[in-house]
Amino acid sequence: MSLLVTGTVAIDSVKTPFGEQPDCLGGSATYFSVAASHFGPVRLVSAVGEDFPDDYLRIFAGRPIDTLGLERRPGSKTFRWAGSYQGTMSEAATLDTQLNILAEAPPVIPESFRNSKFIFLANTAPEVQLHLLRQLDSPALVVADTMNYWIRNSRPDLDKLIQHVNALVLNDAEARMLTGQANLIAAAAAIIKMGLDFVVIKKGEHGALLLTRKNEPFVLPAYPTAAVKDPTGAGDSFAGGMMGYLAARNNFEQSTLKKALAYGTCVASLVIEDFSLDRWNTADRNDIDNRLDQLRNMIIF
Amino acid sequence: MSLLVTGTVAIDSVKTPFGEQPDCLGGSATYFSVAASHFGPVRLVSAVGEDFPDDYLRIFAGRPIDTLGLERRPGSKTFRWAGSYQGTMSEAATLDTQLNILAEAPPVIPESFRNSKFIFLANTAPEVQLHLLRQLDSPALVVADTMNYWIRNSRPDLDKLIQHVNALVLNDAEARMLTGQANLIAAAAAIIKMGLDFVVIKKGEHGALLLTRKNEPFVLPAYPTAAVKDPTGAGDSFAGGMMGYLAARNNFEQSTLKKALAYGTCVASLVIEDFSLDRWNTADRNDIDNRLDQLRNMIIF
Repeated sequence: MSLLVTGTVAIDSVKTPFGEQPDCLGGSATYFSVAASHFGPVRLVSAVGEDFPDDYLRIFAGRPIDTLGLERRPGSKTFRWAGSYQGTMSEAATLDTQLNILAEAPPVIPESFRNSKFIFLANTAPEVQLHLLRQLDSPALVVADTMNYWIRNSRPDLDKLIQHVNALVLNDAEARMLTGQANLIAAAAAIIKMGLDFVVIKKGEHGALLLTRKNEPFVLPAYPTAAVKDPTGAGDSFAGGMMGYLAARNNFEQSTLKKALAYGTCVASLVIEDFSLDRWNTADRNDIDNRLDQLRNMIIF
Repeated sequence: MSLLVTGTVAIDSVKTPFGEQPDCLGGSATYFSVAASHFGPVRLVSAVGEDFPDDYLRIFAGRPIDTLGLERRPGSKTFRWAGSYQGTMSEAATLDTQLNILAEAPPVIPESFRNSKFIFLANTAPEVQLHLLRQLDSPALVVADTMNYWIRNSRPDLDKLIQHVNALVLNDAEARMLTGQANLIAAAAAIIKMGLDFVVIKKGEHGALLLTRKNEPFVLPAYPTAAVKDPTGAGDSFAGGMMGYLAARNNFEQSTLKKALAYGTCVASLVIEDFSLDRWNTADRNDIDNRLDQLRNMIIF
C-alpha cells in the first residue's frame, strides 16, 4: 500500500568517537525513506535549498523512492545540523542548527501523492505536521514523531495533532515528558488514553516498547551490534523499517506491528554501523532478514 | 543441585516516590535466597549483629532456606543501608551506610554446606568473595556479582577472583567501567575474554544481556510492570531467580541460561512492586510462571 513520508532532507556534520564526517547527507525523511524502500515504494515529501549537492540525490535514484515531492527551492538554503556523540553515544550534543528552509513555508504534497494510505509525519512543528496531513485524501494509518522541543513549547498544537493521527513514535525521554509518568509502561498507557491506536517508545540500544489500545504490551530488545559508529538517523530508520513493513502488509494489527518493530530495530542496527547512510552501500534486504532471524533466535527461551 | 549464596542480610531504610520504609529487611543474600527458594532449596551464608530483629527471620522460615550459615554475632551490629530513589528510580542515592559487621571477619561456611555445587557470591570485597569461595569443596558453577567501588579500588583482587569463577553478573555501568568499552556487546565480549564461561549484564528496566564463551548473545527485555514501588533488591532477586532455576536444572547450557535469565527478570519484576520483600507475602511460583508465559508471548514476533 502507498507509503508517504514528510520530513527533512538535510546536510549533517557529525563527530563520534569513531571519526568525523562534515557535510554529509542526513535528515529524517532521508533515513526513513531509504530504510522503508527495502520493503516497497516510498513517496518522499521535503524541501532543500539550491545549495543541496546533486550527488546526494543518488541515494534515492536506485531505489523505489519517488522524489516528485522533494522540492528544490531557488534562493533557499538546506537545513543543516551539526552534532557530536561521546561515550555510550546514546544522545547527541547539538553543536549547530541552521534552520534555513525549515523556517520558510513547508513543501506542498504533490497532487498524485494525496491518495497515499500509510503516512509518516517525521519530527517537525506539530502545526506543520497537521498542515501536511490535511492535504491528504483519506489515509489508512498516520504515525507521527515528535520531540522534547514541541512537547515543551507547542503543547496545544501537539495535542491537536494527536487527535488526528493513529499513533505516535517517540523516545523514552519524550514519552516521560509528554505524560509526566516516570514509568515507561505507565507513560505508554497514558499516551494511548490520549486517543491513539498504538504508541511505540524507542529506547535506543535498549530496544522498543509497543502498546496498543488493547493494552497488550510488546517489548523488544535492540538487535545487538558491537560495531556502532554513528547513531544519527537510528530513530528515523527504525520508523522507516516499521512503516515500510506495515505498508507492505497493508495492515497494522498487533501481530503485524510486532514484526514491524522487529524489522525497525534490525534496519536501525545496520544504519548505525557506518556514518550517514553509507551502510546502505552494501547492506540490503537480505542483511535485514538475516538479522531478523538472528534476533528471533536470540530472544527465544 | 545444592545452591549456596554468600552476601548480606541487612536493615534498610528506603524512600521512593511511593513511600518510605524505615528499618526494613534488606540485603543481597536475603533478596537472593527468597527469590531462589521458589525453585528449590538454598543455603544462606551471612552474618548479622545482635540488634537484628527476630521477626525478620520469619521470611526464611516458611521456605526451603537453610539458615545454618546465618551467624548472629554477639556484640556486633547489623549492616545498615539507607537510600532514596527519584524519577525513573533507575539508581539509588545512598543516604547512609553503616558497615558494622561487614567491617569485621566474614562468616564461616558451615562444614555441611561445603559440598554445595551452585554458588552465588553476592557483591562484597573480591578478597572476601575469594576467601569464602576457598572454603568450598568442588563447586560446579560459581557466579559473582561486583560493583563500581571494587572495580575502582580493588582491581587486582577482582582480577584474581575472576580467574576462579565461571561467570559475572553485573549492571551496565559496571560492565562499561570494568572494560572501558562503551558499547555493551563489546563490553560483554571483553569480559568473556577475561576467562569466563558467561556474563550477564543487567540493565534494570531495560532487561538483561547474556553472552557465553560461544559468543552467542541473548538479549531479553525486562518484564514490563507499571507498578514499581521500590527497586531495592531487583538485581539480587534477578540473580536468585536465575541461579535458582540453574540449580534446579543442574546445568548451565545456553538454552538453560536463557530461560534462567527470563525467570530472573520475572522474579525481579515482582519484588519491585512493593517495599522490601513484602511482595512475597502474596506472590508465589505461580505468579512467576505466569509472568514467564506472558513475557514469552510478548516478545514473540
